[in-house]
Formats: sequence, structure tokens, C-alpha cells
Amino acid sequence: MANIQEIAKLAGVSSATVSRVINHKPHVSSETRAHVQQIINQLDYVPNINAVSLKKGATKMLGIVAPTFSDSLGTFLKNFTLAAQQGGYNVTLFLTGLDKQKELEAFERLRNKQLDGLVLVIRLNEWDVLESYAKYGPIVTWQRVEDRNIQSVFMNQYDGYMLALEHLYEKGYRKIVNAYGNTAGLNTKSREKAYADFCQKYDLNPNEFKHFYNQGHMSEGETMARWWVDQTHKPDAFVMATDYLASGLVTEAKRLGLSIPQDFAVVGFDNTLVAHLLDLTTIHYPIGKQGENAFIMIDNQLSKRTNPLEALSFHLVERLTT
Amino acid sequence: MANIQEIAKLAGVSSATVSRVINHKPHVSSETRAHVQQIINQLDYVPNINAVSLKKGATKMLGIVAPTFSDSLGTFLKNFTLAAQQGGYNVTLFLTGLDKQKELEAFERLRNKQLDGLVLVIRLNEWDVLESYAKYGPIVTWQRVEDRNIQSVFMNQYDGYMLALEHLYEKGYRKIVNAYGNTAGLNTKSREKAYADFCQKYDLNPNEFKHFYNQGHMSEGETMARWWVDQTHKPDAFVMATDYLASGLVTEAKRLGLSIPQDFAVVGFDNTLVAHLLDLTTIHYPIGKQGENAFIMIDNQLSKRTNPLEALSFHLVERLTT
Repeated sequence: MANIQEIAKLAGVSSATVSRVINHKPHVSSETRAHVQQIINQLDYVPNINAVSLKKGATKMLGIVAPTFSDSLGTFLKNFTLAAQQGGYNVTLFLTGLDKQKELEAFERLRNKQLDGLVLVIRLNEWDVLESYAKYGPIVTWQRVEDRNIQSVFMNQYDGYMLALEHLYEKGYRKIVNAYGNTAGLNTKSREKAYADFCQKYDLNPNEFKHFYNQGHMSEGETMARWWVDQTHKPDAFVMATDYLASGLVTEAKRLGLSIPQDFAVVGFDNTLVAHLLDLTTIHYPIGKQGENAFIMIDNQLSKRTNPLEALSFHLVERLTT
Repeated sequence: MANIQEIAKLAGVSSATVSRVINHKPHVSSETRAHVQQIINQLDYVPNINAVSLKKGATKMLGIVAPTFSDSLGTFLKNFTLAAQQGGYNVTLFLTGLDKQKELEAFERLRNKQLDGLVLVIRLNEWDVLESYAKYGPIVTWQRVEDRNIQSVFMNQYDGYMLALEHLYEKGYRKIVNAYGNTAGLNTKSREKAYADFCQKYDLNPNEFKHFYNQGHMSEGETMARWWVDQTHKPDAFVMATDYLASGLVTEAKRLGLSIPQDFAVVGFDNTLVAHLLDLTTIHYPIGKQGENAFIMIDNQLSKRTNPLEALSFHLVERLTT
């Protein structure tokens, strides 16, 4: 492919003049400009943008990092990407699976200036390791972190979870089973705290039933339906970590000939498509807006702006499972 | 941040020597190498990879372009990205919505050498426009194209659709309604052809019922359930463009008090999570493997390899809606 020197030679001008034409700089006569542009077009010359971004020191590229994107995290990915594109950035996707090295590779790209900023949806490495990269560019996470050089778009799960519990109480349910997600996460701790406070408020025994932890896959929801059948002392309601998990419980219950909410009530979490399809009562979680906020936080840091964040709140969506 | 010149000055060696150390090149004594490396570590110097890729002429970055990623296309995105990462590439995501300009921007990045190759899942611009970029790097599409400088991972929808029709016939259904996707697409034409051939084979009137076109959203499936109620001459089966569309039909039918498959049978397409949740009979469509094949095609072109593609075939998944 042609380079600036060849264009200069063919046009009979200096390389500096060619560069001024390419970069739309002044001090070139319109006649010379047209002549040089014609040669550029003939040669099908394209400036190498990697060289341009090398000079400018910004790649206008952001990274988004997660083990996988499914269900509600897909909405986060989409809204973050659309907001970034709107703001003049593109987004590189890093799927880490269970590979800590892959996660670090994304962070190394921040250090190497191949990314201007980074959103870490769900981490694999320790926070201390990841935080050490904060000096190379803005890092925002979806997870709850505090007292770190990493900003977070988290919402306090206590509030959303309490909405689910109060709704069940109002409907007359008193024998509630909780299915939590990742045990180690601060989100689970917030939900546990909500349940403890709820039990204290209404004088319920918080350990009347087993608590389920690390529940994620739909098949684990299916297993819980079969667990319910086997119990002699049966709970009358389930609060499930996600709609996806709740969907397994509800569909398996129907296959077993049970009636919901007559046999037991179910509340999901997230308000995804699956909740609409199965008429699940659930907690609406504005995860798309969190994706937009993640971009605003990064953009504010990179561009020294103070654009306001979207206001975020949970609300109950009552359907047919309570 | 430090640069090579500063490191050279502090180490008392030439810039060329520093460069040889950084790039692990020979002709530097181990003593000098250790000394230079120590200074590099002290200064926390990081080579700018954009400069490196500028020199090598390959960015090891691929693009994936689509209006949006939801449902089964999310699986395509995931599998393509995982395969690309495995092969040493990263993937930038371009969400085009309805913006033709955004699609062209992705193609311009191929021309500008910011991408080594590109997967176009669903196009917005004309093929002629997009094909003109094929000289800058490999382009692979999920859509059906023929006689173009663009490779495709498409599967012949005729085969999958015929599986659905033959299954309905075997089960005794004769009054079949078709809900097709994008009218302009070659996939729809293949499905129409399958239905025409099917009707001829069994001496059925292909125009006994209305054909639905451009059906995509779940709410359009819901509308079809209400349409069925209003008909005096009623069909006994529906073949739906996607599981997602079928899910609207099935859930609305249940809300209306209808029984499936007693009132009518439903076959979906794709075999996604939704089909499992709703016990939909559907056609399994190996869209994840198509994502892997898209990477193999690009990698074969970029690396002059001839790795074999995954074999792809449709199959019927019989559940409770037929």
C-alpha cells in the first residue's frame, strides 16, 4: 500500500504538505489540496489509524470483561456498548470463563494503552491484583466494592430483596426459603441481612428452613422443586436469586403436577424476558441503566466531565406466582 | 511515563540496546540485559503495543457486527468470541441498531487496519457496498450469500424447515400456518420453498391459510394467538420463525385458556433456552458451531491454514407442543 512519501513524490509536494491534507490542517492552497487528494484517491491510500492513535495517546477503545454474558448480563453488555458507541468509543469483549489469565490479559491492555478504560462485570482475580491497574486508566465494576480505586455501579441488594420479602408477608406467606447466588459476594451478604432483619421484624425463625447457596443454573431450580416434594415440613414460598433460577423451579413444579402459587409462591429477581414468559412475580432490576452508568463514570474520568448518573431503583412486578 | 531514550540515558547504553532488551533480541550481554531490565522495572516502563502492532501490521483484533445480540445470536457471539480468544485474537463488538453508518464504521476499521477480519452477523448496507471492503481483510457472514467475496456460515433453512413440516404431517396435522422472518432474506425464501414442496408432495393447498411475514417480536406471537381465536376456519398447527416468536404464541394461548397441542400444535425454531422452559417442540439449530466456523474461516484466510469446519446439521427436538 502507498505511503505518504510516495504520495508526496507523485504529487510533487513535500511529505509535510501531504500530511496537512490528510489531517485537514490549514496552510495548503485549495488547488494543491485537490491535487494531493486526487493522488490519495488514485492510490486508495488509507492512513493507518494505529499510527494516529499512537500519536494522540488515546485509542477510543474500552474493554468489558466477564466470565460470560447471558440473561440479564447481556442487557448490561448491550446498554454499555450502545452508550460507549454514542460517546465515540468502541468496545472490546473479553470472555474470561474461569480463566484468571484471560482477565489479566484485558487489564494488561489497559496498561499497554490498547484500552482507554475498562468495565469489569464479574471478577476472577483478587481485588488487590486488579486494583493495581487503576493507575493506567478508569476501571468500573458491576460488583459491589468499597474503599478501592475502582468505581462501582452496584445497587444495594438489601432494598430489592426486602421488597420481595415484604410482598410475600403481605400475601400471607410465612414459611420462606431463600436461594442465594455466589456465597462470597457482597450482594449475597446484603440479601442475607435483609432476610435476618425481616425475620426479626415479624418474629419469624430465620432457620426454620434450609438456605440454598451458590445457586445459578436453571437445573438447580428444577432440583429445588423435587426437594420441596420430599419435605414433610414444607415451606410455602421461595425467593430465588434470579429469574433464570426461578424458571427452573416453576417449570419443574408444573411438570410434577404442582400448582403455583397454591402449593408454594415464587418470587424471581431481575425482571428478564423469562419472567414475562412464565408470568413470574419478580423484582425489576435496572441492569441496563447500570450499563449506561458504567460508561458515564468512565467517560467522566477520561474527559474530565461531571455528567450525572442515571437514578436507579428496584421495584416489585407482581404476576401470577404469588 | 518513561520512554526508551530516558531508559537508555539512565542505563548508560544506546536506545538500540534498550530496544533489543525489550524485544528479547540477541547481541546484548546478560550483564547489560539485567542492568537495563532493572531500570525498566524501576521506571514501571510499559512498551506501547499500538507501536508494536503498527510495526507488525496485524492487530490480532477481529470485529463482530450486528444490529443487536439477543436470544440465539448471543450464542453465536459467545462461541465466536471464545474461539477467537483461543486462537490469539480479541473481539470488538459493533452494535449497529438501525444505523447503516455504524456498520460502515466497522468496515472502515478493517480498511484502516484496526481490525484483521470481520464477522457480519446481519447486514444493514447493500452487499455491493460491503463486498468492496473484502480486499482489506476476510469478511464472513451468518446470512446466506452466494457468488460474493464474502464467505458465509449459513445453513440451508430448507432442510430444517422440512423437518418441522414432516413431523407435523406424521402427527396428523394438515392445516398448517407459517410465520416467516425477514421477507427479503434468502432464509425465508428457502423456508417458503420447503413449504411449497411439502404441499405438493402431500397434495395440500399452500394458500389455505394466511402466511405471516416479518415476524420477530414475542408480542407478534401473542397477536397470532388472538388471531386464531377470531378465525372461523381454524388452522391446527403453526410453524414459527423462532422459539422466541413461538413463546409469545404459546404463552398467550395459555392465558386465553387454550390447550396446546389439543387446540393447535406449535413448532419453534432454534432450540434455545425458551424452548426448553416452555417444553416447545423445535428444530435444533447449531448456531454456536456456526460462530466457531466463522472464526475458522477467518483464521484460515489470515494464517493460510486449511483447518476443517465443524459439520452442521438440523434435528427435530420433540417436546409437548405437538
